[in-house]
Amino acid sequence: MPVPRSTERRMIAEIPPRSGTAFRLAAGQHLRVIDPEGGQVSDMLAFAADDPREALSNGRTFDYEETIRLGEGNRLWSNRSRPLLEIVEDRAGLHDFLLTPCSEATFRHFYPGKPVHRGCFGNLAEALAPFGIEPDAIPVAFNIFMNVPVGRDGRIKVDPPTTKPGDFIRFRALADLIIGLTACSAYDSCGGTFKPIHYAIEAG
Amino acid sequence: MPVPRSTERRMIAEIPPRSGTAFRLAAGQHLRVIDPEGGQVSDMLAFAADDPREALSNGRTFDYEETIRLGEGNRLWSNRSRPLLEIVEDRAGLHDFLLTPCSEATFRHFYPGKPVHRGCFGNLAEALAPFGIEPDAIPVAFNIFMNVPVGRDGRIKVDPPTTKPGDFIRFRALADLIIGLTACSAYDSCGGTFKPIHYAIEAG
Repeated sequence: MPVPRSTERRMIAEIPPRSGTAFRLAAGQHLRVIDPEGGQVSDMLAFAADDPREALSNGRTFDYEETIRLGEGNRLWSNRSRPLLEIVEDRAGLHDFLLTPCSEATFRHFYPGKPVHRGCFGNLAEALAPFGIEPDAIPVAFNIFMNVPVGRDGRIKVDPPTTKPGDFIRFRALADLIIGLTACSAYDSCGGTFKPIHYAIEAG
Repeated sequence: MPVPRSTERRMIAEIPPRSGTAFRLAAGQHLRVIDPEGGQVSDMLAFAADDPREALSNGRTFDYEETIRLGEGNRLWSNRSRPLLEIVEDRAGLHDFLLTPCSEATFRHFYPGKPVHRGCFGNLAEALAPFGIEPDAIPVAFNIFMNVPVGRDGRIKVDPPTTKPGDFIRFRALADLIIGLTACSAYDSCGGTFKPIHYAIEAG
């Protein structure tokens, strides 16, 4: 019998609650992002390693994929009309590509009575700075596991993720990339809990 | 009796079919964008005049306005969480903030048998170059009058605009801005016709 993918040997890294990281992902490598406890969100950014002015674009992706609900088989496109990542396996089935990473400003706006946090935006900005990527260059993230229903009138809300422990999504890099990745810091997105995110880089 | 706004004296400029322009709009001024013949789309960008790294962000706007259907009373926000424009009057009622301006690449993708055009992306890039704004810095535009239905499953399509001749939208600038504005070049967005767009800058 074939060995299930979930037990294959690989290094799994942990992103602690309310933090972020950035790393290189070579063309052809796979990135697996896992929700180890369930009910958590991870904001992901991708930039072309050879020129980070090329970055994920939700608008170009909606254009080419002709949907705002991205899942298995869809590709995530750059502002230069190049596919950067392909979703090759999706055990969660619900992600968001409409909303920007939370920041100090969004915390003050949405949670006026609660402590302010720099959010995924601040975490991504710090993690990406060593790659020469400025905060202003952070686009809309692909918000893995994030549950953002869109009503028929266009109104949106942020509900808790539907993920169960161990749910994951797996991407294949279609170019040499710089990836930014977080464990969500906002109250609504992760149902009021702050949990870690796991990820693994695989040979593909 | 008060004079109706529509007959106030003002300068109306024309954007010829399949072209674009860029200009400054001071805080407090109003920008009226008019579809003179009906059935046409105009892609609009806005950048902070004092630092164009601050630009319109569809994601921040969806966040703060809690809808993907922007109309009268909504504000368009920047990547720095600042509202740049407010929609103060909307006689059209249907606009898009999901899709990026068409480019040579999107023409080749969506209209393989037809002549390639640089699209609103190319027109905006040329118009914004004198302001020091590079093509890579062009975000998702606010696509005035563009008719992009979103299905319950998230699938999107581009239908002809529903505007009638003379329909318009009016914005108030909430900061000193650089505006990019086009008359749509793509086949689907404007129902296969290429028409001009009119605009006027008003004292507010």
